[in-house]
Amino acid sequence: MAEFDLIAQYFTRPGLPGLNPADLGVGDDAALISVSPGHQLAISADMSVSGTHFFSEADPYAIGWKAMAVNVSDMAAMGAKPKWATLSIALPEINGEWLSAFSQGLFACADTFGVSLIGGDTTRGPLNIAINIFGEVPVGKAIRRDGAQAGDDIWVSGTLGKAALWLQHRLGKLDLDLVDVTNFAVAMHQPQPRAALGLALQEIVHAALDISDGLLADLSHILKASGKGAQLDWAALPKPELLHSSLPLTDIQQAVLAGGDDYELCFTASPRRRDEVLALANTLELPLSRIGTITEAPGLRVLNGETAIELSQKGYLHFD
Amino acid sequence: MAEFDLIAQYFTRPGLPGLNPADLGVGDDAALISVSPGHQLAISADMSVSGTHFFSEADPYAIGWKAMAVNVSDMAAMGAKPKWATLSIALPEINGEWLSAFSQGLFACADTFGVSLIGGDTTRGPLNIAINIFGEVPVGKAIRRDGAQAGDDIWVSGTLGKAALWLQHRLGKLDLDLVDVTNFAVAMHQPQPRAALGLALQEIVHAALDISDGLLADLSHILKASGKGAQLDWAALPKPELLHSSLPLTDIQQAVLAGGDDYELCFTASPRRRDEVLALANTLELPLSRIGTITEAPGLRVLNGETAIELSQKGYLHFD
Repeated sequence: MAEFDLIAQYFTRPGLPGLNPADLGVGDDAALISVSPGHQLAISADMSVSGTHFFSEADPYAIGWKAMAVNVSDMAAMGAKPKWATLSIALPEINGEWLSAFSQGLFACADTFGVSLIGGDTTRGPLNIAINIFGEVPVGKAIRRDGAQAGDDIWVSGTLGKAALWLQHRLGKLDLDLVDVTNFAVAMHQPQPRAALGLALQEIVHAALDISDGLLADLSHILKASGKGAQLDWAALPKPELLHSSLPLTDIQQAVLAGGDDYELCFTASPRRRDEVLALANTLELPLSRIGTITEAPGLRVLNGETAIELSQKGYLHFD
Repeated sequence: MAEFDLIAQYFTRPGLPGLNPADLGVGDDAALISVSPGHQLAISADMSVSGTHFFSEADPYAIGWKAMAVNVSDMAAMGAKPKWATLSIALPEINGEWLSAFSQGLFACADTFGVSLIGGDTTRGPLNIAINIFGEVPVGKAIRRDGAQAGDDIWVSGTLGKAALWLQHRLGKLDLDLVDVTNFAVAMHQPQPRAALGLALQEIVHAALDISDGLLADLSHILKASGKGAQLDWAALPKPELLHSSLPLTDIQQAVLAGGDDYELCFTASPRRRDEVLALANTLELPLSRIGTITEAPGLRVLNGETAIELSQKGYLHFD
C-alpha cells in the first residue's frame, strides 16, 4: 500500500459540520489555514512512542484518542480554542485492523473537541505518533506559566493519581481490586482534556498548565517561571476513591502528587476570584479543588496537617 | 538528564537577528505566533526515521540539516516564506556528542532559511525526528498542485538523480568512483531546499511541488490533481555528471526519473513565461530546465528521441 492510499483510507474524511476546515487540507505540499483577526495562533507538539507512552499491545483506539487528547490538553492549558492538527506517524507495518481502530480513536477525540486533521506524514518505522495542534486565542489572552502572584489560590481540576495507580498496578508494583483497576483504566486510556475549562479560565486566572508529569513536577514549572513558591494542603487534594482496594498512604501520596498522565489543569488565581471558579465548577460539572497558595518565598511544600510530605520520586522524568 | 535540561542545552538559543521570533517560544504549554495580516499560514510536516530515511550511523549534523531542509522544501513548493518550526524528537539515549552535532546541523539549516524553532517535544524511543514547519503566503497566492494547464511547460530546478545514485552505491547496487560518490553525497546529505525559487515562482507558475519521491511519482501528483497528462523529453532532463564512473543508461534513467531525495522543484508555467523563468535561473544562479509539456490527454510519457522509456520502478513507495 502506498502512502497516499493509506492516508486516503484511514486519515481522510469529508468535513464535518462544526469542525474547522483548512483553506487547503491534506494532499498538497502544505496545508493552508487562516487565523481569525485579532487572534494569535497557539502551537503545541506531543509525541507518543510505543514502549515509552503506551504498552505495545495497548488498544489502538485508546492510543489514537490519547495521542490527540494530550495535545488538546495543551491548548486547554493556554486558554486557546483547539482548531487544527497534523499527524505524523511511523508504522512498523500496515495493519488494517490496528489502523482502523487507531484512526477511529483519534477522530473521536478530534471531533469531540472540534479539531480538524489538516495534514501530516506517514512513514515506516517503530511506532511513533507525533501530533502538532493549532488553536486560536485572542491577542494577549493566552494563559502562561509565568503569571502566578504571591497570595494566589492554587486550583486543580478533576482527580489526581488515577492513571498513576493503574500504571503501578499494570507494572505489578501495586495490588488493586479489578473494580478499581477498571475505573482507573479509563483515566489512563481515555483522558478528558479540560478544553472548556481552559477557555473559561482565560479571563480569570494568572497562570495555568496541564498536569502530564505529576502535580509537583508541573507546578514547579509555574513556580520557576513566575519566581514564586507554593504551599499545598494534602487534605484539600482531590484523591482517587479506592472502592475495593486498600493501599499504604505513601503509595497514594506518590500517585496524587507525582503521578503522570492526569491531564487535569492546575491554575492560580486571586482569592477574589473564588466564587467565579466555583461557579465554573458547577457549570462544567467538573470538580475544581483549591489545594494551596502561591508564596513569595521559593520552594514547594506539601503539608499533611503540620507535617511536610516527602516523596521518593517527584515526578516523571523523560530521561532519568 | 531531564527533558527540560536537554531542551535548554541543545535546542534553545538566543534569538538571532533576521529570524522570526515567536510571540512566546519554547517553555510553555504552547508557542504563540502572529500571522501577518493578509497572509495564510502554510503548515507542513515531515518525519525522518532512522533506518528508513537515513542510516543509523549517518553523520548527525547531516541528519539535523536534512530533517529541517525537507520541511523548508515543502514551503518552497507552496511559494510560502518559511518562518517557524517545531521539533519533536524521540531519542534512544542521551548522547551529548550526537545531540550537539545534530542540533548544529538543524540550526544551520534553520538559520540559512530564516526559520525559528519555537517548540516541540523530546522523549525516549527509537530515533525519530518529526518537524512541523510554518510559513506565510499572501492570501490566495500559494502554489498548489491542481493548477497545471494543457500546453504548460514543465520545468525542474537543479540536477536530478544524484542522491539516488549515492544511495544505490551505498547499498552496493552500483559501482561509482570515489570522486563521484563524494560529489553525490552532498546532494544526499545536505540538500538545498529551493526557498528563494519557490517565493519567486509565486506569481509565475500554475502548479509546483518538490521532488522527494522521484520525478515521475511526484509529477504524477500534479497530473492527478490537475486532471492532465504530460510528455517529458529525456534529452532535456538535467542529469548528474559522472566524472570518473560509467553506468548503463538504464541506471541513470532510473535515478533521474524515479530517484528520491532530490528536493528540487518541479513546476508548470505558460510558455509565455519562459523568459521570466530563464531570468530567474540567472538571478538565482540555479539551473532551470524545461523538460516537457502538460497535455490534455492523460498519462505520463518520457521520450528518448522517438522511443518511450520504461522504468522498472516508478518511484519511492513508502510502504511497498
